[in-house]
Amino acid sequence: MLAVWDDTATLGHALDFEAALAGAQADAGMIPASAAEAVAAACLRLKHEINPAALADEAALAGTLAIPLVRRLRQASGEEHAAYAHLGATSQDLAETALACQLRDSAALLLTDADRILAALAPLARAHAATPAMGRTLLQDALPIALGLRIAQWHAGIADARRMLDEAASRGAVLQLGGAVGSRKGTGDVAAEVARRLALADAAPWHARRTGTAGIAAALGVLIGATGKFARDVSLLAQQGIGEMREPAVAGRGGSSAMAHKRNPTACQVALAAAVRSPGLVAGVLAAMPAEQERGLGGWQAEGPMLADLCLLASGALEAMASVAEGLEIDLDAVSANLPQGEEHDLGQSARIIEDLLKE
Amino acid sequence: MLAVWDDTATLGHALDFEAALAGAQADAGMIPASAAEAVAAACLRLKHEINPAALADEAALAGTLAIPLVRRLRQASGEEHAAYAHLGATSQDLAETALACQLRDSAALLLTDADRILAALAPLARAHAATPAMGRTLLQDALPIALGLRIAQWHAGIADARRMLDEAASRGAVLQLGGAVGSRKGTGDVAAEVARRLALADAAPWHARRTGTAGIAAALGVLIGATGKFARDVSLLAQQGIGEMREPAVAGRGGSSAMAHKRNPTACQVALAAAVRSPGLVAGVLAAMPAEQERGLGGWQAEGPMLADLCLLASGALEAMASVAEGLEIDLDAVSANLPQGEEHDLGQSARIIEDLLKE
Amino acid sequence: MLAVWDDTATLGHALDFEAALAGAQADAGMIPASAAEAVAAACLRLKHEINPAALADEAALAGTLAIPLVRRLRQASGEEHAAYAHLGATSQDLAETALACQLRDSAALLLTDADRILAALAPLARAHAATPAMGRTLLQDALPIALGLRIAQWHAGIADARRMLDEAASRGAVLQLGGAVGSRKGTGDVAAEVARRLALADAAPWHARRTGTAGIAAALGVLIGATGKFARDVSLLAQQGIGEMREPAVAGRGGSSAMAHKRNPTACQVALAAAVRSPGLVAGVLAAMPAEQERGLGGWQAEGPMLADLCLLASGALEAMASVAEGLEIDLDAVSANLPQGEEHDLGQSARIIEDLLKE
Amino acid sequence: MLAVWDDTATLGHALDFEAALAGAQADAGMIPASAAEAVAAACLRLKHEINPAALADEAALAGTLAIPLVRRLRQASGEEHAAYAHLGATSQDLAETALACQLRDSAALLLTDADRILAALAPLARAHAATPAMGRTLLQDALPIALGLRIAQWHAGIADARRMLDEAASRGAVLQLGGAVGSRKGTGDVAAEVARRLALADAAPWHARRTGTAGIAAALGVLIGATGKFARDVSLLAQQGIGEMREPAVAGRGGSSAMAHKRNPTACQVALAAAVRSPGLVAGVLAAMPAEQERGLGGWQAEGPMLADLCLLASGALEAMASVAEGLEIDLDAVSANLPQGEEHDLGQSARIIEDLLKE
Repeated sequence: MLAVWDDTATLGHALDFEAALAGAQADAGMIPASAAEAVAAACLRLKHEINPAALADEAALAGTLAIPLVRRLRQASGEEHAAYAHLGATSQDLAETALACQLRDSAALLLTDADRILAALAPLARAHAATPAMGRTLLQDALPIALGLRIAQWHAGIADARRMLDEAASRGAVLQLGGAVGSRKGTGDVAAEVARRLALADAAPWHARRTGTAGIAAALGVLIGATGKFARDVSLLAQQGIGEMREPAVAGRGGSSAMAHKRNPTACQVALAAAVRSPGLVAGVLAAMPAEQERGLGGWQAEGPMLADLCLLASGALEAMASVAEGLEIDLDAVSANLPQGEEHDLGQSARIIEDLLKE
Repeated sequence: MLAVWDDTATLGHALDFEAALAGAQADAGMIPASAAEAVAAACLRLKHEINPAALADEAALAGTLAIPLVRRLRQASGEEHAAYAHLGATSQDLAETALACQLRDSAALLLTDADRILAALAPLARAHAATPAMGRTLLQDALPIALGLRIAQWHAGIADARRMLDEAASRGAVLQLGGAVGSRKGTGDVAAEVARRLALADAAPWHARRTGTAGIAAALGVLIGATGKFARDVSLLAQQGIGEMREPAVAGRGGSSAMAHKRNPTACQVALAAAVRSPGLVAGVLAAMPAEQERGLGGWQAEGPMLADLCLLASGALEAMASVAEGLEIDLDAVSANLPQGEEHDLGQSARIIEDLLKE
Repeated sequence: MLAVWDDTATLGHALDFEAALAGAQADAGMIPASAAEAVAAACLRLKHEINPAALADEAALAGTLAIPLVRRLRQASGEEHAAYAHLGATSQDLAETALACQLRDSAALLLTDADRILAALAPLARAHAATPAMGRTLLQDALPIALGLRIAQWHAGIADARRMLDEAASRGAVLQLGGAVGSRKGTGDVAAEVARRLALADAAPWHARRTGTAGIAAALGVLIGATGKFARDVSLLAQQGIGEMREPAVAGRGGSSAMAHKRNPTACQVALAAAVRSPGLVAGVLAAMPAEQERGLGGWQAEGPMLADLCLLASGALEAMASVAEGLEIDLDAVSANLPQGEEHDLGQSARIIEDLLKE
Repeated sequence: MLAVWDDTATLGHALDFEAALAGAQADAGMIPASAAEAVAAACLRLKHEINPAALADEAALAGTLAIPLVRRLRQASGEEHAAYAHLGATSQDLAETALACQLRDSAALLLTDADRILAALAPLARAHAATPAMGRTLLQDALPIALGLRIAQWHAGIADARRMLDEAASRGAVLQLGGAVGSRKGTGDVAAEVARRLALADAAPWHARRTGTAGIAAALGVLIGATGKFARDVSLLAQQGIGEMREPAVAGRGGSSAMAHKRNPTACQVALAAAVRSPGLVAGVLAAMPAEQERGLGGWQAEGPMLADLCLLASGALEAMASVAEGLEIDLDAVSANLPQGEEHDLGQSARIIEDLLKE
């Protein structure tokens, strides 16, 4: 996930956008095929030549990556073709299309990570569909449930959130091509072809309409929250005095610099820390929505880093909890010892609810 | 919308839940039909008799509305039937099912309010599909667009958000019936029938799985943000020196206690104030997601007021901006005067993008 | 605290402001003494006569309470004196000065509530300065500490936050008197006298400078967080399997509608729910800071309800935890049983740190 | 500011902490002087030898930087002295003391940046204490004020926030030394000397008491908000049709990739983007406050990155707006043209309020 969001990736998507734009404009007969070829070749070359760190300073000064990048691209395309690069496009087209590519790639990774968790939890839930375990409400012992019911609820939460992200990404991680003011003046009628070349969905310009990225941010926040729920429970069940579950032991993880004997719930810590940070990031993206006119001042520029942070936090949380799901240690003796002794445990309709939860 | 969320409504839904539960349990042969009738009659009577304010104090002390309410319900059902009321259910079943009804009702109102805006904006966007107007980026004049393009973007943002809310409500505003620990121990197999009686969708228990309510909160935040975008633009365009649009004049609205001549953009103010408040409310709902075990401590109890606030803010914002959409004053002379004079204005593909935006 | 923020209180402060303004302007010779008397008498009368609910509707339409209130005040002052009411003042002067009074009153209540907690915890911390108890890190047993050390840390956190609120309120809960645009055009040089009459600190106009209210919001958020820390620990220590502490039993509190035997940590729940809601409210107040020019559109109007919510949440949390602090049940047998058996417990410098923490 | 927060700085502070701890423990006669010298020498050497990136991976796995760092430090100190390194300390001591150093250094930079703005704005406010300019409320022209009054309000807001940060940093950026569970078991009575060696204030352990860092986060949020207010106004005043102010022209800044003639308010954009992002970060820090027992799980681990982000955003915003303050372009003709023509302008008590605001 770090590779999805590093400067090299951003730059690569930005240059792919320029090559796709020129290619599509050549297809449409707007610019010479030779110009599109020169631009594409320059893009390819610049991917290797540009030092992203150097560009970052210029971008910070200019207020956008596009200005120094397009300047270099025009130079690299040759004097004859320079005017055909970035034709009709604006900084935000380049920045947001790159962002859309990164969100699409992030979503793909996250869906896969979520699937790892789902694949590990489903059989565990079924295996314990009739294992009595103490149910706890408001941090107090309540009545027995099936151990698998708790696990199936973790599964269902992450499955719900996974579906939300999938839908949000398919709607929000889409091409942005609007030109200076969103009218596509001078870009030509090439959006569908540019999108096709970038393997993005085509879409009307969304430069000052932030519902798509806001939807993705919200879905990431929900996914992190659902993963945090799983982590919360594992960490509570791992307490001494309860001791029903533990994170798997991983070499080098979860130690203490002062108490060598401890096994800390470090993966849960990663997921819970993500769940502390993500709500504020989602709030930031929502706060940016009322953008000014045809391109907001301050709002959309703030979105990129917040979306990147959300993707990185989601990835860290899912990976950490996938390792927990796959190696979860359950102490059935402790589970049993924490129940009232010498009585039958009525697990209600646990087994059937588990199946409903895993189906959804 | 205030009526959807007032104490009377909450109480009404809670009592409807108890009546539906008893009725479904009688259908299933779990309790005598006479008991269900007695409970239903008691519910009906209590709707009129209970003073919500008095109950609120007891609920605050008990930490839940259910305890004082169920006590009264059992008394009112008669000694013989008392044990058949609230059978197998828990406080959270009652509280969350009432919340689900309120969210369902809120969503219905909000979708209607959004439709008012969409219905007003669509013809306006089409009417100005060829009217040149200055496009502005980063609060600076940029290049001309079609006036209708800006309006169509407002429309598309609200339409996007409307669809998100519709989906989120259909998934999250659903029956909660889990019993003490979510296993439906003692409730009987009656969820589908309880849901049917309440006109809610049936669902597996979600007492400690907050993806549904988090999804609704997020959708409300996006809807308020999209409405705020419309308000931001109208208020900016109403500035002296620009003067292209104005809120409609409404008797009693937008005056100044110090400057009687002013017409303030008061409807925009309502929508923008909502957009300031809502991101933090969404963040709060997301922060509540990692609930402890079978019923969280502090998290879900915090959700209800935040969801209510979000619905009220969304309603206020949508109603205010619906009146703006329906009565928007456009000063075409000012629109024209703010353009470069004496030249043709190339509006790019504005007309076509407008159609795409209105279609989506 | 509800009484501090209800409509009657708001109205009362608003009318006190008008009376103080007229009185000060009469003192300064700007208006006849008889006019000031008439305005003051009208204010007194209106306090009893006005139906706050009726005014609320007009205020919502007008976008400000001031407009319908000043209209009534001018009528009630008599035709001869009408022009002397609200002289030079603007809606925001009235609204923000009322808010300042409410924040001042809230802070006073909250400081007193905090003092109750501090007074209960300090002797408890000292009493257990040498009582060994298991220290826990990352939800895992670690090494023994003095039981009093944990209590002293709760004390220190709330004492830190109490001081922040005291300072923030003394800086931010101050007179607002600026007139239409903050220049005090037409108000006369009466700010010091108006402030004196209202028992508020005098201050330069702060209508579009929100550092004072933002500081109060932040301090409230910190206070709620520090109270939440105390609640978090008590609720964790009350878990079965740990059982070292319990909330005091309070008649009518903490029961369960499904499990009559349970004693739920309901006071902790109140404090933890407040800690879930408050961060987003503070974020909302901070988001409102970049106000437009001489009076923002949407930002400051959003502040009032968020500040009220923060005060109400803080009050609820402090009162709940004051009752816990005053009646905290400590099970010393459980404390002892959770320690490694048969060894001396090195409590380090716990006793000394406790004294440092209580001193600060 | 990037240098304050990069991995090299973190590592340097962590190693300084270890050297100071060993030195203080040698002074106290707890460990041999030769051991302290060996540890100090090893710290110095490791500063140059360790690759922060390599350490980062191990730290991520371990859940804390301390574990791999202390392992290396013990190796580098030699077998004989290894046991004397990190004696009695815990991971969090190292991590939080490093954080405290970074917050102290950040605050120093930010106060200086704020002073640049204050120094530029004060004379400007005084120079225009009698220059009439249109005052605007709710984005509508209202009545004239002194141009200097608006500038003095920017000054006062930033001065307020500067003072809050100064106080918060002096209280919160302090030594953390608590050992495994905060009892200073095994550390010796050396906190004052460790603090002295690190030029930090001494303090009782605060590992699970987050009022200090929460106070700093809040102050940073207020500072960014106050800076955002200045940026909001400049960007609004730079709109075509108003044109009263402009950011200074800076080579390479504020261009447009599509419209070469534009001068975008890029510095304001930086400050406004920071103001969009910071409220959610403050909310995250507040949400982390109710930490579990003697070391929270997820909360405090989330704080570091959020505090770093807040410092970086504050620095970016202040630097950007310092350049604006120092080079602000005021178009007095436009200021004058936007006033009602042919009348005297009553600026009220603007001049006197300006002096009050600059004094505070």
